[in-house]
Amino acid sequence: MSLPPTKSHGRLSISASPRPRELIEDRPRLQGAWRARVITLFPEAFPGTLGLSLTGKALEAGLWALETIDLRPFGLGRHRNVDDTPAGGGAGMVLRADVVGAALQQAAIGTPVPRADWPVVYLSPRGAPFTQSTARRWAAGQGLTLLCGRFEGVDQRVLDHFAVEEVSLGDFVLTGGEIAAQAMIDATVRLRPGVLGNEASTEEESHSSGLLEHPQYTRPAEWEGRKIPEVLMSGHHGRIAEWRRRQSEALTAERRPDLWARYGAKAGKPADEAD
Amino acid sequence: MSLPPTKSHGRLSISASPRPRELIEDRPRLQGAWRARVITLFPEAFPGTLGLSLTGKALEAGLWALETIDLRPFGLGRHRNVDDTPAGGGAGMVLRADVVGAALQQAAIGTPVPRADWPVVYLSPRGAPFTQSTARRWAAGQGLTLLCGRFEGVDQRVLDHFAVEEVSLGDFVLTGGEIAAQAMIDATVRLRPGVLGNEASTEEESHSSGLLEHPQYTRPAEWEGRKIPEVLMSGHHGRIAEWRRRQSEALTAERRPDLWARYGAKAGKPADEAD
Repeated sequence: MSLPPTKSHGRLSISASPRPRELIEDRPRLQGAWRARVITLFPEAFPGTLGLSLTGKALEAGLWALETIDLRPFGLGRHRNVDDTPAGGGAGMVLRADVVGAALQQAAIGTPVPRADWPVVYLSPRGAPFTQSTARRWAAGQGLTLLCGRFEGVDQRVLDHFAVEEVSLGDFVLTGGEIAAQAMIDATVRLRPGVLGNEASTEEESHSSGLLEHPQYTRPAEWEGRKIPEVLMSGHHGRIAEWRRRQSEALTAERRPDLWARYGAKAGKPADEAD
Repeated sequence: MSLPPTKSHGRLSISASPRPRELIEDRPRLQGAWRARVITLFPEAFPGTLGLSLTGKALEAGLWALETIDLRPFGLGRHRNVDDTPAGGGAGMVLRADVVGAALQQAAIGTPVPRADWPVVYLSPRGAPFTQSTARRWAAGQGLTLLCGRFEGVDQRVLDHFAVEEVSLGDFVLTGGEIAAQAMIDATVRLRPGVLGNEASTEEESHSSGLLEHPQYTRPAEWEGRKIPEVLMSGHHGRIAEWRRRQSEALTAERRPDLWARYGAKAGKPADEAD
């Protein structure tokens, strides 16, 4: 598939190699902006959904920046090959260490040395599971480099050489890392100051408390013969909070025994006694 | 954020392929094609990354179809409001049962009655975790309706009324369901016949065996002083398979004690004796 010319997203962009300098010149407006750098064979997949809604507004406002590095120009030969057959045989193709290494070197330009400030991540089903605490850790840094895989994988040597962290979106297999990258960037960016309109939203929502969120209702008071639970219409804040907590606990116990066990442990009592 | 003008297409729209009638006319090419219907406030997010690479090629070839249903036209009043404040108070906004209900009714047109053949799913952090077995189950059906949330959630009554299944991409919070929908559709579509070029790829890869994938290597034989492990260059297929299995087991035990325990149990021996 032929690649269309890369576009820039947000205020600052490296479309692979055409304009690497922009990266280095720290424009005042973008100082302090959190930056996602994505190495991909499909730069046209970005910003995608990240360019819409709240993340899109924040991108336009310069609260964060998204830079794609096209892997293709780092490829070898006339066809810019980026992959080769697996050593030892087997199906699929493996991204070459020399090709990926050159892209990672490009991505490292201008980034802080401590990995805590700028994690370098390969999106892989072999990685540690991505969770809300991963997002919190990443949001506390200055930026993030994400390497999107395709094919069977990436030559292990380049992951070792650059001490690349492997992270998985979940226990399922995607065609490539691009959608996973968007999910992880979305989860991270929305934790940055000013991105969500309402600060309270990050506090109250699912997974912050360790419980699943209680059911929600809104107008109309009756729909298809179904009424909003009476307690929610009572105006008694205490009773409402209590009802919501019990609903959250019951849902968590039923749907997510794993979270429920952890919640019970945290509360200092066995999960089966916690309700 | 003000919404860009939606391409007007009555109530049932396919923005993925700009030819709405195809949906209803059942062209021979699309008979038997697996169909994803997505209810969203951001139809312009689709097909997004799903339009690229193997899933994009398969979409073009008619191996599957992607249909978006814009939630906005179902909204009420001059401003087409789709949400309201939560009953009982709290931050954020809740999608209305009447608005979402009308969209779900639209989405149900022409779908088979048994939910196993056409699941109806709300993407929510409260849902059951999405895994490869969810993808396999969905790929075995005729299609799928996905409801993308935004704001705080959806009125519980509409989920109850339509017996909507709740599924979560993982233990993290996204700005909306659109990226999660893309991830789930990608994982499902690639399991449909003919979508991946190489059938072997789905067999061998991560999570099919219950173990994480072994490291991969490819040319050059030496890079940055690092050599490909000798066994992979030996040509001994038996030794190579054995090495890969041991690597997979070691990686799984180290990185994913949860998978490792399940693998040990399946193999009929305790995980700590399995290596």
